[in-house]
Amino acid sequence: MLRSHTCGQLRKSDIGTEVTLCGWVESKRDHGGAVFIDLRDRYGLTQVVLGPPEANPELIAEASKVPAESVILIKGKVADRLEGKTNDKLETGDIEVRCHHYEILNACTTPPFTPGQSDLPGEDLRLKYRFLDLRRSEMQEALVRRSQIIKKMRDYFAERDFIDVETPILGRSTPEGARDYLVPSRVHAGHFYALPQSPQLYKQILMVAGFDRYVQVAKCFRDEDLRADRQPEFTQLDLEMSFVDCDDIIGMIDGLVAETAKEVLGKDIQLPLPRMTYDEAMRRFGHDAPDLRFDMEIVDVTPVAKKTEFRVFRGTADAGNFVRGMRVPGGAKQYSRRQIDVLTEFVKEFGAKGLAWFRVEDDGSLFSPIAKNFDEAHLAEIKELLAGTPGDLLVFLADTWETTCKGLYALRKRFGAEMKLYDADALNCSWITEFPMFDKDEETGNWHAMHHPFTAPLAEDLPKLESDPAGCRAQAYDLVINGSEAGGGTIRIHDSEIQSKVFGLLGIDEKTAEDRFGFLLNALRFGAPPHGGIALGVDRWVMLFAGLENIREVIAFPKTQKASDLMTDAPGEVDAAQLTELHLKTVKTKS
Amino acid sequence: MLRSHTCGQLRKSDIGTEVTLCGWVESKRDHGGAVFIDLRDRYGLTQVVLGPPEANPELIAEASKVPAESVILIKGKVADRLEGKTNDKLETGDIEVRCHHYEILNACTTPPFTPGQSDLPGEDLRLKYRFLDLRRSEMQEALVRRSQIIKKMRDYFAERDFIDVETPILGRSTPEGARDYLVPSRVHAGHFYALPQSPQLYKQILMVAGFDRYVQVAKCFRDEDLRADRQPEFTQLDLEMSFVDCDDIIGMIDGLVAETAKEVLGKDIQLPLPRMTYDEAMRRFGHDAPDLRFDMEIVDVTPVAKKTEFRVFRGTADAGNFVRGMRVPGGAKQYSRRQIDVLTEFVKEFGAKGLAWFRVEDDGSLFSPIAKNFDEAHLAEIKELLAGTPGDLLVFLADTWETTCKGLYALRKRFGAEMKLYDADALNCSWITEFPMFDKDEETGNWHAMHHPFTAPLAEDLPKLESDPAGCRAQAYDLVINGSEAGGGTIRIHDSEIQSKVFGLLGIDEKTAEDRFGFLLNALRFGAPPHGGIALGVDRWVMLFAGLENIREVIAFPKTQKASDLMTDAPGEVDAAQLTELHLKTVKTKS
Repeated sequence: MLRSHTCGQLRKSDIGTEVTLCGWVESKRDHGGAVFIDLRDRYGLTQVVLGPPEANPELIAEASKVPAESVILIKGKVADRLEGKTNDKLETGDIEVRCHHYEILNACTTPPFTPGQSDLPGEDLRLKYRFLDLRRSEMQEALVRRSQIIKKMRDYFAERDFIDVETPILGRSTPEGARDYLVPSRVHAGHFYALPQSPQLYKQILMVAGFDRYVQVAKCFRDEDLRADRQPEFTQLDLEMSFVDCDDIIGMIDGLVAETAKEVLGKDIQLPLPRMTYDEAMRRFGHDAPDLRFDMEIVDVTPVAKKTEFRVFRGTADAGNFVRGMRVPGGAKQYSRRQIDVLTEFVKEFGAKGLAWFRVEDDGSLFSPIAKNFDEAHLAEIKELLAGTPGDLLVFLADTWETTCKGLYALRKRFGAEMKLYDADALNCSWITEFPMFDKDEETGNWHAMHHPFTAPLAEDLPKLESDPAGCRAQAYDLVINGSEAGGGTIRIHDSEIQSKVFGLLGIDEKTAEDRFGFLLNALRFGAPPHGGIALGVDRWVMLFAGLENIREVIAFPKTQKASDLMTDAPGEVDAAQLTELHLKTVKTKS
Repeated sequence: MLRSHTCGQLRKSDIGTEVTLCGWVESKRDHGGAVFIDLRDRYGLTQVVLGPPEANPELIAEASKVPAESVILIKGKVADRLEGKTNDKLETGDIEVRCHHYEILNACTTPPFTPGQSDLPGEDLRLKYRFLDLRRSEMQEALVRRSQIIKKMRDYFAERDFIDVETPILGRSTPEGARDYLVPSRVHAGHFYALPQSPQLYKQILMVAGFDRYVQVAKCFRDEDLRADRQPEFTQLDLEMSFVDCDDIIGMIDGLVAETAKEVLGKDIQLPLPRMTYDEAMRRFGHDAPDLRFDMEIVDVTPVAKKTEFRVFRGTADAGNFVRGMRVPGGAKQYSRRQIDVLTEFVKEFGAKGLAWFRVEDDGSLFSPIAKNFDEAHLAEIKELLAGTPGDLLVFLADTWETTCKGLYALRKRFGAEMKLYDADALNCSWITEFPMFDKDEETGNWHAMHHPFTAPLAEDLPKLESDPAGCRAQAYDLVINGSEAGGGTIRIHDSEIQSKVFGLLGIDEKTAEDRFGFLLNALRFGAPPHGGIALGVDRWVMLFAGLENIREVIAFPKTQKASDLMTDAPGEVDAAQLTELHLKTVKTKS
């Protein structure tokens, strides 16, 4: 190595040692005829002093001109810092290196920004100059954290007899689910590979092949319209096990969560992680990934609404819809009438027609512009159902089940953040289970697979698979961390007849099923073990375990929301000859 | 788990235990009113007995009909085997399970082949039914071995402060090198991503960003015409280090080779691995990846050829070309005149015009149809140069340097295999260094980068970079194992001016360079450390460490030589709507 030590390595015990360091000039200052350079690398920061007698005036003059962020090599002797000049915040803060030799390995021209600057420029500029942005300690820490978490995952599964198997990136397009990225074939004119949305079918095949326990950190791809937390390519910890049921997979991941939390964050997580059915989650929190760092729950007051004279409540209840609400502890003070108007506009984004609310007054009475429409007895019942106490705000939506779920979930999330109802450092992990097998497209009346078409129904619901698809629950489980889905999986169908039935229910006719999934149906006929698995969102895990909120901060070279790489300028134009070889022509879109 | 134990787990100490096993019916036989089933899973084989009194006649009758390769679950008690019935070859060979409960989890319809059958069908059928082929113990062992080797690699580098960073799969097309796989963009009409041929530029950017030590097991892609040992997607162990020279990278990999050989094969490899320059390798073995498991070397007899009367030799020498040969110990007996004719045809495939040969007779004289064209003294000189002894065959090519290299390399390889000159279990590892920076396209006169355009020249050759490109050597190194290139790397250029010069030499004009590699040139201007790295071919490593010869045996789901996946039938046709979204039209190729 060009260096003898890293910039984070030297201690008091090294005093007197002749060393060679390499690194970036983080900062420099001239002081008392000497130049002080903070030399940085991934491992730390070391103070380098160029002053007499070690450094001659020429060297000092040269060093005083070196631009920040240049890469230099220095030789010198480790020395004690002067009394009062030590720096407790640096691990190398007790020493400095008195430099007698100095080389610029690569001078830095004026950069558009420096990693140390406090007022960072916009993200686009940082993505374009990603090599500068990645020098920031926050980015370095996030990527080191990512590397550690993935290593931890791999070790955990290797210790448990899982085999790491690589599945293909160049696969076959199966138009269910999200949009595929396609790769034209040169050898087979007019044919295309697809990049995998997940290794789902391959891992099932591995189980049929007897691999018993498979794991892979897998790149997956979806050509979707991108939201803030989506990337066209993303990473999943993907696994599959044979001869298991839901409890086995959940137990396996429970252990991983606890070990990762312990090793990465030093946190103790109590096992088993709590579980809640999908129905319960929708009832209590309006969502299948509830944030359980705080308690606020949805209460159904439809039975009371049915009795009241208030037209909106009663009409809703009579129509078979729902009036559901939540108690916001201390919310009366926090939310003025004007702020409640803002909340009302907010819930409209989720399809609600309005927001009913009551303030619990000091005397225990309920205040609201709509209170006059209610009997005292009904108000008392509502207050009791929500356990309202003076100072609380009670909010209600009167709408379809779905809209009350969506609106109240969004409100709950907002209250949680605005009222700081949880510890931002908390790591709250739980499972949601027994998802419905299918949901219905209200427009077309078609059934969709809630998870994917390979999911097995609960054994007890199997008899109603065809007679009552809506009532059929799946052997499915989602891991939820701090209100985010951090993973999801299912036990799979391992019987080709049931698989064919499910395809049928999903409107995939026999021919299409054979065309697209013939190899799977085939595999299920040749000795397929019961099996199941899960995929964990690695990017999401790293965000949650690193306490970050922007997915682009945990990916070295992310794409923008328009799926561009601003550094390399991908996607780019290609030579006409390349397209000819691929039997393709681009079509100009009419403007 | 549905099972209490795996099929490889039970021992004498478990006798008397009630167990539940799951697995595949490897084979079954009826004997003395009982049915014996060999039950298989990834972990082993256990003998299950269905007989009285534990099993009732109904169960026995049912079990006797179960098709091979079906998946069953059995419950029973572990019992001692009868004397003389133990099986030393099985780890579970001392016991059997006397079954009282039996379920078919998935019956197997008649398979096209069974994993246990000795006469395997052709590879195409096995690839189509990959889930059956992967049940073969050889395939399971190869993939377990692969998983272990990759784990070993990751652990090795993690222990040495390397950070595992994922680089993008959706990148930018750079038409140098092999043909890219392209991915059309939906958002940016007429634009394309390219799948990476290697993470080369990203890992250099990571060094400029200060990550110091990067490692990744990376999927790479090349749309090339496929040879037996090529796959459109392949896996590389890719790494990069800052502040290093060739010795640092080579030393780092030396350690990996030794530890992997020790852990995976139990072999001791002596370090440091031997090194040889490119020039020496071409001179002694005619190739830059010589098989050093055996000694045979090329000898240059041009000086003698110049003196002889034999027209072919003398003419070649006079034209500035070469007469080079090899001694095949004991080859006189092994190769009859007819077989030498076969060798002559063989070398013609490599551009040679013919093969000259001499047999060293018992009396030490040289016999050959061409011997009469030589003076005794010249024959003696030739024999001495090659150290010929009675019974040897001496073979010669008279041609250009390149043709003698190619032909003699191929011959040497053939002699090695045919004469069993090496131990097939040997693991011979060495380095080839100091490759030329450039080679010349003889047709166009253009210079090509021998490795890639980012390779740094040897410091001592830097002055002749432009004046004598052919004489300029690179800071490049290839790892060779048993005559196969198992990895290659270089120290990179970290100076934007030298990088620009090299682009210029390669005929990449300034505008094109800025277009394609602007971000790299930019990065080299903002504080780039000296850096270098290497990529190891993981598929090749697994083949070499598992003693396999077909790359498709170390990949779970390989493509054929026509880049097809016979199981899923990829690549496939896609809906017209998908192409419309991608602003593409397929073009019918004229037939």
